[in-house]
Amino acid sequence: MGQVKDFMQIALNHAQIAFEADEVPVGAVIAKKDQVIATAANAMKRLGDPTAHAEMIAIRKACEVLKQNRLIGCTLYVTLEPCPMCLSAISFARLDAIYYGASDPKSGGVSAGNGLVGARALHHKPEIYEGFCEVESAALLKAFFEQKRG
Amino acid sequence: MGQVKDFMQIALNHAQIAFEADEVPVGAVIAKKDQVIATAANAMKRLGDPTAHAEMIAIRKACEVLKQNRLIGCTLYVTLEPCPMCLSAISFARLDAIYYGASDPKSGGVSAGNGLVGARALHHKPEIYEGFCEVESAALLKAFFEQKRG
Repeated sequence: MGQVKDFMQIALNHAQIAFEADEVPVGAVIAKKDQVIATAANAMKRLGDPTAHAEMIAIRKACEVLKQNRLIGCTLYVTLEPCPMCLSAISFARLDAIYYGASDPKSGGVSAGNGLVGARALHHKPEIYEGFCEVESAALLKAFFEQKRG
Repeated sequence: MGQVKDFMQIALNHAQIAFEADEVPVGAVIAKKDQVIATAANAMKRLGDPTAHAEMIAIRKACEVLKQNRLIGCTLYVTLEPCPMCLSAISFARLDAIYYGASDPKSGGVSAGNGLVGARALHHKPEIYEGFCEVESAALLKAFFEQKRG
């Protein structure tokens, strides 16, 4: 599990970059075996793009790097549970697995009740593992929203 | 309803552009009142990007044109029922309404059974109208996939 923690630490560093840029602090990494293929911080505000979640940017970067639109053999590490948009994109990109930090019961695509993981529309279902660097990931999000509330 | 048909016709023209570029033929238009803000054809193959659905490209273009990441007051016209990724993006972008052509019971985010429209994660729910230029939209998709199967 040492390697998962290493990749999650890189994702956390990107969440921190997002935090410092006044973006909701979420970071993501896509790796193929031992190698980091793409990293991203949430950039919705900077790019003025509601689809610019860390996972979406990482997927698009990884496809560009690998010059293919399928990320078979790749794994995504992200500090927050992916939303339905990102979970669908992960499925389209055929990522093998996702490791995420904090849960998002209100907006997540994985959590029970949102129903997407079991949905017919999700043709490729990645393996999903949660709770990695959960405390650090959640603390960063909490600090961000507390600061916003002033 | 004349205006809806006009916008759907533009979406159909873009689906035709996708068809001719050997892409799954789906086209989209975003309009604000009478004015077309953005148009897009599905470009997954050309861009090597599994997230480059017509709706996603149109949303990103419209945000760029309007210099805002919320598309309040705007409507999306698309030839095929949006998938869960696009439906979530439509929700994030706060589009007022969606009009779509062909249904996609296998992969759509709206159709009963996929469960996304009613999901907790979809905080903003656009108005959704289906079946506009359905025959033409579906015929183009059918021709594409028949040609693929040889």
